[in-house]
Amino acid sequence: MTLEEKVAQLGSRWVGNDMGDSAQEDGYDPEEQHNVAPMQDVFAAGGSVPLEAAARHGLGHLTRVYGSVPLSPAEGAAELVRQQRVVMAGRLGIPALVHEECLTGFTAFGATVYPAALAWGATFDPDLIERMSAAIGRDMAALGVHQGLSPVLDVVRDYRWGRVEETIGEDPYLVSMVGSAYVRGLQSAGVIATLKHFAGYSASRGARNHGPVPMGRRELIDLILPPFETAVRIGGAGSVMNSYSDVDGVPAGADPWLLTEVLRDEWDFTGTVVSDYWAIPFLATMHGIAGGNADAGAQALAAGIDVELPDTIGYGAELVAKVRRGEVPEELVDRAARRLLTQKARLGLLDPGWTPEDSVLAAPVTDLNAPANQALAAELAERSIVLLDAGSALPITRPLRIAAIGPCADDARTFLGCYAFPNHVLPRYPQLGLGLDIPTALDGLRAEFGAGEITYARGCEVSGDDRGGFAEAVEAARGADLAVAFVGDLAGLFGKGTSGEGCDAEDLRLPGVQPELLAELLATGTPLVVVVVSGRPYALGDLDGRVAGLVQAFMPGQAGGHAIAGVLSGRIQPTGKLPVQIPRHPGGQPGTYLQPILGATHSGVSNLDPTPLYPFGFGGSYTTFAVDELRLSAESVPTDGEFAVTVRVRNTGERDGAEVVQLYLADPVAQVTRPVRQLSGFHRVELAAGAGADVTFRVHTDRTAFAGRDLRRVVEPGDLRVLVGTSAGDLPCAATVRLTGPVRPAGADRRLVTPVEVRPLES
Amino acid sequence: MTLEEKVAQLGSRWVGNDMGDSAQEDGYDPEEQHNVAPMQDVFAAGGSVPLEAAARHGLGHLTRVYGSVPLSPAEGAAELVRQQRVVMAGRLGIPALVHEECLTGFTAFGATVYPAALAWGATFDPDLIERMSAAIGRDMAALGVHQGLSPVLDVVRDYRWGRVEETIGEDPYLVSMVGSAYVRGLQSAGVIATLKHFAGYSASRGARNHGPVPMGRRELIDLILPPFETAVRIGGAGSVMNSYSDVDGVPAGADPWLLTEVLRDEWDFTGTVVSDYWAIPFLATMHGIAGGNADAGAQALAAGIDVELPDTIGYGAELVAKVRRGEVPEELVDRAARRLLTQKARLGLLDPGWTPEDSVLAAPVTDLNAPANQALAAELAERSIVLLDAGSALPITRPLRIAAIGPCADDARTFLGCYAFPNHVLPRYPQLGLGLDIPTALDGLRAEFGAGEITYARGCEVSGDDRGGFAEAVEAARGADLAVAFVGDLAGLFGKGTSGEGCDAEDLRLPGVQPELLAELLATGTPLVVVVVSGRPYALGDLDGRVAGLVQAFMPGQAGGHAIAGVLSGRIQPTGKLPVQIPRHPGGQPGTYLQPILGATHSGVSNLDPTPLYPFGFGGSYTTFAVDELRLSAESVPTDGEFAVTVRVRNTGERDGAEVVQLYLADPVAQVTRPVRQLSGFHRVELAAGAGADVTFRVHTDRTAFAGRDLRRVVEPGDLRVLVGTSAGDLPCAATVRLTGPVRPAGADRRLVTPVEVRPLES
Repeated sequence: MTLEEKVAQLGSRWVGNDMGDSAQEDGYDPEEQHNVAPMQDVFAAGGSVPLEAAARHGLGHLTRVYGSVPLSPAEGAAELVRQQRVVMAGRLGIPALVHEECLTGFTAFGATVYPAALAWGATFDPDLIERMSAAIGRDMAALGVHQGLSPVLDVVRDYRWGRVEETIGEDPYLVSMVGSAYVRGLQSAGVIATLKHFAGYSASRGARNHGPVPMGRRELIDLILPPFETAVRIGGAGSVMNSYSDVDGVPAGADPWLLTEVLRDEWDFTGTVVSDYWAIPFLATMHGIAGGNADAGAQALAAGIDVELPDTIGYGAELVAKVRRGEVPEELVDRAARRLLTQKARLGLLDPGWTPEDSVLAAPVTDLNAPANQALAAELAERSIVLLDAGSALPITRPLRIAAIGPCADDARTFLGCYAFPNHVLPRYPQLGLGLDIPTALDGLRAEFGAGEITYARGCEVSGDDRGGFAEAVEAARGADLAVAFVGDLAGLFGKGTSGEGCDAEDLRLPGVQPELLAELLATGTPLVVVVVSGRPYALGDLDGRVAGLVQAFMPGQAGGHAIAGVLSGRIQPTGKLPVQIPRHPGGQPGTYLQPILGATHSGVSNLDPTPLYPFGFGGSYTTFAVDELRLSAESVPTDGEFAVTVRVRNTGERDGAEVVQLYLADPVAQVTRPVRQLSGFHRVELAAGAGADVTFRVHTDRTAFAGRDLRRVVEPGDLRVLVGTSAGDLPCAATVRLTGPVRPAGADRRLVTPVEVRPLES
Repeated sequence: MTLEEKVAQLGSRWVGNDMGDSAQEDGYDPEEQHNVAPMQDVFAAGGSVPLEAAARHGLGHLTRVYGSVPLSPAEGAAELVRQQRVVMAGRLGIPALVHEECLTGFTAFGATVYPAALAWGATFDPDLIERMSAAIGRDMAALGVHQGLSPVLDVVRDYRWGRVEETIGEDPYLVSMVGSAYVRGLQSAGVIATLKHFAGYSASRGARNHGPVPMGRRELIDLILPPFETAVRIGGAGSVMNSYSDVDGVPAGADPWLLTEVLRDEWDFTGTVVSDYWAIPFLATMHGIAGGNADAGAQALAAGIDVELPDTIGYGAELVAKVRRGEVPEELVDRAARRLLTQKARLGLLDPGWTPEDSVLAAPVTDLNAPANQALAAELAERSIVLLDAGSALPITRPLRIAAIGPCADDARTFLGCYAFPNHVLPRYPQLGLGLDIPTALDGLRAEFGAGEITYARGCEVSGDDRGGFAEAVEAARGADLAVAFVGDLAGLFGKGTSGEGCDAEDLRLPGVQPELLAELLATGTPLVVVVVSGRPYALGDLDGRVAGLVQAFMPGQAGGHAIAGVLSGRIQPTGKLPVQIPRHPGGQPGTYLQPILGATHSGVSNLDPTPLYPFGFGGSYTTFAVDELRLSAESVPTDGEFAVTVRVRNTGERDGAEVVQLYLADPVAQVTRPVRQLSGFHRVELAAGAGADVTFRVHTDRTAFAGRDLRRVVEPGDLRVLVGTSAGDLPCAATVRLTGPVRPAGADRRLVTPVEVRPLES
């Protein structure tokens, strides 16, 4: 291969970016509702190169053929074949690798919209997520897509960040397990998963998207990197995408420590590192660490970014020139090209006789929302809803006149994440609606309780300050036996929503005038159930003790309407658990449950109390569970040993249900400050009424490793507190295991997973 | 000396802590208004050892003889003599070193209360601060005090933190210059200054006092450490106190990198490191990095804490035992004892014939608020008030009926910082009032405008939700030509105030119902001037464009009443400048002006706009200034070179005044992200109406040094932007200097100060 041909493999082309949108030529206008990626218009000039020119020497990736404009599967496939033919017209005839977004399902017109990632976390059910991503992967693979830009493995550090909905939650172990399951499922269908955003993105100062991340190496190593390491080492992920942000001054996209030393040398990652969209030119324009796009490209390549997305800007002709001038070693180009070409070879793209037509015709898909998908979406929605407080009203088992109120009551878009096609692309095509038939919560209530019992008043919009609908809403509440308020978010991009990429919150008050609407409804005296449908946790302290029921749904996807109604009626037994805390106060951010003593507790040294309203891992049920009888296999183990923790979980109520048994570890004295407790194992156990099971966690001492004073991971001797229960705030089973022997270095080969066994009790 | 005698020198005793307060025996009760230090009651048991027992082998320090209970100078001196006599009764007869607080003046009954440190920052006048601290030092030295626990050199990183009022502001250079001036002044009187809190305290997560600090090394090196380094190397400070917090998991009090490698090995510090109160036992109880007090003591000693304050807990008999058992090298005890004894020798405490009686009788002081002090306090107050917006009403030059409204209008305590004796100690002694005659703002207005023109209504308290006074306040406003609202903070300790140690804010709304009071006053239609008297900046966006005048006073001290009134009347020409930004929005914290592009600018990637309402360095005047005619001595300098920047500043208005000419530097392309601009020189220039001056900054390229990729400070070649003006938001003079040559390591010997020369123009 010539140098030009090798460099061409490192680039990409987003034809779709300017297929259906003529706004780019006007330059960037934040008021225009066109963007599907940050500042895409800024780079329209670079992007407007015809594909023929861009692919003259071949091309690494084709960007989002299906995901940019509304195309039927057949139209998309035809366009993909056309683009691949252009790419393959060159001397070598190597096809492009085709990537798409797939965070809440395949981001394509008419495709199933599954719950947002935060709702995956709420299931605490990796197997279910693996089934979902396998289904997503099958649809994508059948249409010739090779890589999906999911999952997001950022660990939540600040609830105000707009992309919280895209994450799996605030605990690295939960994110690791669920995220790795997603990777396995997607890749089981032959679609490469992409771990993002590597790393540190979620902790930007003031929660402003892309903002500088004030974080030390220890926090990065102990809390941010584990999901990536797990998804690489256990999940076998094929690709990693850099974070946009800088951590303590070093942008991830130009950080060889992160992209090469940690990822490759320590974790043995052999796949490709792809740039987040325009992250390479951002090194110059947004970070000021490069003198221009060519310099940015050279730095990114040296750091370890193999493929530039979504268009070739830093990795173009100027990179060729830099190599020719001896400013960039050709070995760096070879290294990156080899990685991508290895992937193409594994995908069969280099096989003789491979054709783009075959790639989309092998298993033709005409319905991206097939019945099996729909059933899976429903199962996910049902399992992800969290009952915070059954109060006096839930489940609603007797006939009542119900007033459904609020901006999320009759708007299916509020169930969908910002990467769902209806929220991501379709706002530009209002005539197309959602491209799917998605029942709203109101539809669900009517189906559940009979339309005659339900009145509806919107009350207000998700955002804005229009109180014009309050009176009607109050009247509806007054005329009902029960008011059910649906409040929360509408996902969008870059300021167009209240949640989603570029939609960050100043604080954790419910957006707009929704808190005032709730206050007015409470004042009516009609019992009020509040259903929060949101992409982030909101501070609900003002509702505490004042509502007749409280339910949290984290953007439950297309099946959310019936799932929520089913939880309200009791048809569905809620089993979801909080992947993030529900704070009491809207201010005082950031802060999650993973804190050392001084961050976790209300002491005399500050008036501010960080105690949440509902703790991490919490979720109620219409039955009751007991967790007790903790048994340890040993009271003392060497620092390279293993011990077993067994507890008994019993359904002590009248209904079948499921409990997520959660293991937390705590290290009371360590060489650095440590979280007061940290999730280290969990398992969802289905139990019929009256049934029980013994749940055994096999804990290797590796699972206690942390970054010591010198930032190397160690397992320390000393007392280890073992805590088991149903949330971070309910840990009735406690014991101490003594770790003995020397401080032991814990390397990249350490155990990342806590195996769990469940043995049903004989009844 | 025996081992016991050496260890005894590392300890201390706070007799005053249990002299006037019987609450300690009840254990810690956050509801009790007794604390003057965090959790002091927790350690009362340790503290209740009689001095005779505590000093059996001698004693390092005596803690706050004057500062704990209200004593006249004579009573305090007698008590000090008594305690010194007990300490000296042992075999060696070495007296204790005596330390006190002195943040807003000597923290003693009846002593002058100068403005809070944030107000020192607002003067941008190091010479004035040096005069103040010299006066403070003279009073302390005359009463036998050897060390003062000031200045606070923490650089503000989060406005919500309660201790913002104790800092000099959010810019390291401003803090460096003003803080070092404080050190010089205090030490000129023979009193050792104590730099605190070393280091990172100000950036706790969620702004909760003592909370974990998420910060990387680069931020620590570039933004937090420079004031300490400057005050050590340029200021010659004799003592340093550790920060309570951990930075990225490592508590400062057990961090040998910080306390020894950086402070001693790199900066050549030869004084003592003292622990913040109870910081050593906190290593066990609050941080979980030590197994108990003895372990905590061993770790602190090894890290580099020489003296434990305020009582011996970690450095007591168990430390002796640990040395005897070989668990702690005796050299560590010798190292610490030698440092303290060297200080005692320098202070003359080891001189033959030194007596405690002489130490307090050499220059007897009976009045700690002498007329010279009062004049200085007035000068400081006048220079620290910041005119944000003269609006339509200021200065108030014609006769008007004025309604003075608000909780800060007639409460002199609101002018005083949390370390002022009246706020720190006297709330326990309500019968003593403030111990000083301090005019309120209302007193000031009456003196300024004549009592007959002034009506007064309190409206509401600083905190709480009582709106009962609103109606009277609204009526007062309606009946006046002009309403002047005095809103802001009341400083206290540990939740007892709205500002001060342990009084952190959830967000930057004015406390309590003050925002509602202002809204009601605005609704009257009477022109409203708002005077914010606060310890932190509050978000004032809601007032923007709606008020007839806006003034910011940062707890101006005992002379605040007349100073504020003088600014309102125009008798005093305002010259204060903002040492912190005034934010527009109450949420979205933290964030200060020192941000790289993505933190400083409102771009399409986040909906949140960090632009402040008033920028760092801003302050208005009743005259006008022009800054122009920038001249460079060279357009290109080597990376180890120097260049001069000259601008012309002219008073273009009708009144005499003073402008603070500010030099900012910006590094558009660097190996790491850099602030978009950073204060690198400033000078306050007094100019008569029509007069002008040339101001020349001599900038060594060392002043551009920053922590490079490997965390070593470097000076990089490339373009440097030079910006001069009157605030971070008004920089009309701009030029580029090219730095040439290699990347140059910039070590501990680099230039820390930008010399400034002022040459008056001939008129």
